[in-house]
Amino acid sequence: MISLRIKALRQLMKNCGLEAYIIPSSDPHQSEYVAEYWQFRSWLSGFTGSAGTLVVTQDKAGLWTDARYYLRAKKSLEGSEVQLFITTLDKTPTYETWLQQVLKPNAVVGFDGYVLSYTEAEKLERSLQNKNMSINGNLDLSQTIWTERPLMPSGHIVEYPVHFAGESRTQKLLRIRLAMAEKKVSLHFLATLDDIAWTLNLRGSDVPNTPVFLSYALIGESQAWLFVQGSMDLALSRQLEQEGIILKPYKELETFLKDFDSQTIYLDPQKTSYALRELLSLQNTLNEDTSLAFWMKAQKNPVEISGHRQAQVRDGVAMIRWWRWLEQSFARQTEISAAETLDEFRRQGEYFQGPSFNTIVGYATNSAVGHYKAYPETTPTLKPEGILLVDSGGQYLDGTTDVTRTLCLGHASAKQTLAFTTVLKSLIKLSTLEFPEGTLGDHLDAIAREPLWRQGWDCRHGIGHGVGHFLNVHEGPQRFSKNNQIVLQPGMITSCEPGVYFEGEFGVRLENLLLTYRSQTTPFGDFYGFETLTLCPFDLTLLDETRLTNLERKWLNDYHARVFQALVPLLNPEEESWLAQKTRAIGGL
Amino acid sequence: MISLRIKALRQLMKNCGLEAYIIPSSDPHQSEYVAEYWQFRSWLSGFTGSAGTLVVTQDKAGLWTDARYYLRAKKSLEGSEVQLFITTLDKTPTYETWLQQVLKPNAVVGFDGYVLSYTEAEKLERSLQNKNMSINGNLDLSQTIWTERPLMPSGHIVEYPVHFAGESRTQKLLRIRLAMAEKKVSLHFLATLDDIAWTLNLRGSDVPNTPVFLSYALIGESQAWLFVQGSMDLALSRQLEQEGIILKPYKELETFLKDFDSQTIYLDPQKTSYALRELLSLQNTLNEDTSLAFWMKAQKNPVEISGHRQAQVRDGVAMIRWWRWLEQSFARQTEISAAETLDEFRRQGEYFQGPSFNTIVGYATNSAVGHYKAYPETTPTLKPEGILLVDSGGQYLDGTTDVTRTLCLGHASAKQTLAFTTVLKSLIKLSTLEFPEGTLGDHLDAIAREPLWRQGWDCRHGIGHGVGHFLNVHEGPQRFSKNNQIVLQPGMITSCEPGVYFEGEFGVRLENLLLTYRSQTTPFGDFYGFETLTLCPFDLTLLDETRLTNLERKWLNDYHARVFQALVPLLNPEEESWLAQKTRAIGGL
Repeated sequence: MISLRIKALRQLMKNCGLEAYIIPSSDPHQSEYVAEYWQFRSWLSGFTGSAGTLVVTQDKAGLWTDARYYLRAKKSLEGSEVQLFITTLDKTPTYETWLQQVLKPNAVVGFDGYVLSYTEAEKLERSLQNKNMSINGNLDLSQTIWTERPLMPSGHIVEYPVHFAGESRTQKLLRIRLAMAEKKVSLHFLATLDDIAWTLNLRGSDVPNTPVFLSYALIGESQAWLFVQGSMDLALSRQLEQEGIILKPYKELETFLKDFDSQTIYLDPQKTSYALRELLSLQNTLNEDTSLAFWMKAQKNPVEISGHRQAQVRDGVAMIRWWRWLEQSFARQTEISAAETLDEFRRQGEYFQGPSFNTIVGYATNSAVGHYKAYPETTPTLKPEGILLVDSGGQYLDGTTDVTRTLCLGHASAKQTLAFTTVLKSLIKLSTLEFPEGTLGDHLDAIAREPLWRQGWDCRHGIGHGVGHFLNVHEGPQRFSKNNQIVLQPGMITSCEPGVYFEGEFGVRLENLLLTYRSQTTPFGDFYGFETLTLCPFDLTLLDETRLTNLERKWLNDYHARVFQALVPLLNPEEESWLAQKTRAIGGL
Repeated sequence: MISLRIKALRQLMKNCGLEAYIIPSSDPHQSEYVAEYWQFRSWLSGFTGSAGTLVVTQDKAGLWTDARYYLRAKKSLEGSEVQLFITTLDKTPTYETWLQQVLKPNAVVGFDGYVLSYTEAEKLERSLQNKNMSINGNLDLSQTIWTERPLMPSGHIVEYPVHFAGESRTQKLLRIRLAMAEKKVSLHFLATLDDIAWTLNLRGSDVPNTPVFLSYALIGESQAWLFVQGSMDLALSRQLEQEGIILKPYKELETFLKDFDSQTIYLDPQKTSYALRELLSLQNTLNEDTSLAFWMKAQKNPVEISGHRQAQVRDGVAMIRWWRWLEQSFARQTEISAAETLDEFRRQGEYFQGPSFNTIVGYATNSAVGHYKAYPETTPTLKPEGILLVDSGGQYLDGTTDVTRTLCLGHASAKQTLAFTTVLKSLIKLSTLEFPEGTLGDHLDAIAREPLWRQGWDCRHGIGHGVGHFLNVHEGPQRFSKNNQIVLQPGMITSCEPGVYFEGEFGVRLENLLLTYRSQTTPFGDFYGFETLTLCPFDLTLLDETRLTNLERKWLNDYHARVFQALVPLLNPEEESWLAQKTRAIGGL
């Protein structure tokens, strides 16, 4: 199947005079999770992970993805001609370098300019120029060969009430326009769906796991234009127009943009497609940098923080109900049924809108697989032994959650206990840290890894990512990861999810969400700390408490006491006594 | 005095049509410690610290230096018109930015192109172009006004035997020429004195605290040229010429370089002066990057490492003899006499050639002063109370040392004990760390700071610097400091010197030298660790042992036992029993 599709693509490439064609995983909005309509790369390669670029030449094909997806991509590509490249490994060539090696001079490399970002396309162009090669970004080859292509989504768009958002649309637009005036730009073009949803206090359902809607926005000095694919109640559209936000159909964007000239337009070249950026640059001056909303939405306001704390209580209740159910019922379950049941428990919580990403339940050796996805044909039945890793989260109207726990279904081995305890030490290290203003995500990532390093281990992914507020579960700019040069700011919510994975054996990951706050001001400056937001016990049967320091023991006991206090009002007596046992204090203080 | 000198400079600037003049702290070789001949900045400003740039306009003057020198520079500039700028603070403008603010458009900014590096000059030029200003790098104004200028040094140059160097000159040149061939360059121009001394296994005495000699080198495919200011025994010069190294007078460099054309020349624009780089670029193609020797000399060979270990024994003996003497005699001493006595104890050690930097003894509030320098008029007399910080090192034929200890001359306060214990925890953290291949100096710096951060404190300088082998005590490329993007490699020697300073109260710094070695290879990759090279006890009277973890206690006891074992063969019975007491095991394991 896959080979036939690639063959059809190659024929088309030949017809268009292309020596190579690039199929990224992106949509026109550079979303992480993309609607099926844009999943041409999955359809062509069989690899369904969220990140990956497929590059096809007449006699070669390669898939570039990151280390999280290593095992999954290896499985997906087994038996196909597509070669796997893990971008996060030191010696992996970029696809640009690879193209320089495999193509002849003067080759033309094609792509769909509406899905590749301008930054990516420009990097490709510069790189190919070294070998006299060129790009052609006007070719959406999916149109012709992807006959059963799904429809473009067009869900219902709704108001996101200010009692959840904490700041009105008017106020947000005012802040953005003040920043625009400072930058002396007359228009701000926005292509990123979460930035648009955040700015306009609107939500939708066009993209899996994320309450956003297909759209573009253009913010002017007094007016704004919103291009949407989905539907909207008349009352809402009238309200928006009253506030100076003019609604337009999604497909009219290009025609509309052509009418602008001599403007100074602010846009993010990393988030704007090659085609649109080229169009806007024709008759206007561009000022290119990260979108203004991108930074603003990262620092959550007090209403968002308070909402998030409440969502965590419901999320914790779902997690412990599921865990208790699992202990009683796992013998008849698979990874898939366990995941479905967890989604079911979350659905019972108030304000729940859906999972914030596809629930991951990895059992036994599958717990070592990054971003594991279970398939009905291969998912194992759970047994009273081994490790079960569960990574899941919810989209609640008042917040987005993301939590990982590693549980033991039987007797833990010494290595499993050591791995769990070491990963927990890493999590506690970051959770209890104080750090001065100016500390970067890169620094916090290194600090968190120390306990793993001391075992000769390492975590193959970043230690954490920013999280949106009823928006993307992966949100920038901050991350705890190598090379992240973003200064942590109060109000940022970031996951802390150290892990260690032994391929073919088992993996351990533990994840809480952390809120950055200003903890103290000393003669050495402002210091920040983290408030742990997630409320779910750790599996003490996997803990070697003799390896914890007194401070670590105290943190764990305090945390478990807090979890118990927070969740108990929503529990029945059986659940309460179960939770009391799970959150019992450990000794040795 | 200072104001008269600046006045004279301003008159000269006016005559030359300059609106500003820049006086860096560098010599033509971008040395850290520079011969008096080039200390024009000290002479003009009164600030004698090793790093600092003076900028003078017709009505303003500013000195840019880093945080290490804050207190010292503040004192030096008191009462003068020169404004102090601390470069390591976030909001400090660079002098380029400052010049843009204070000068009018079309202003000309002058400097001596033989002392400012090309990189620095080019950055300045680019920055000034924004405001239509320009540079003039052909003006050494010191010539005219610095009438009592010292002579250019011209010390004796000697062979550095291969039984200390561990690798012959021929072998080093071969390695460099292989790298040159790979880079397709015909000549490698070297201006950095330690790179030249390392490459050619020669040493001299032209620069304080560093056994280097004024020189330039040009390495060709089969020949090399060495331009020296100092003298050399006939036997050595004949030997060099036999090996294809042609000797030339230092002052003939420029004339000689003018004869080259159509060459591809490799040079480091950060280490080559503006004037020489401009000259070389006229008729040749340049390939600009860090010098080849710079990277090679950072990874010490087994002979160098073994020599360094032996030098540390002698250095440790000097340190403990001095400490014992101090305990018996401090009542009659000042910071200056204590420092002189320490130098005297070092001088008794085999192979000792001189201090590796000016010995720092800072007593009481002076211990909080970065890179403190005592003056006879103001140095306090030592009393049986308070903190004494001693930072010193030796140049031995078989290695360069650098060690800091903080001692208590009486009863320690709770704050002093907490500070000492926290700084020690920071030192132990780095000393015991394991870390994967690819870890950067920046990461290790952040990790070491964690114990300080947890107290709401921070260290105002980097946690460590590379150290040369009978060469510069500060040697690149690696440093434990923010933004250092250098991957730690086996064989590198780096200081670990966390500190905390309470201005007006006291400061604590502890420093050992650490050797990076490959500790293990696991399924997660290669891991590195540190061997502690320094052999000197920590003052246990300043320790709050209840704050140490079991691992930290064990490290301290093991380290003290090692120090005792290593030094005891060179000690008399009284010294032995004194050291046994200082290195006694602490309890609680």
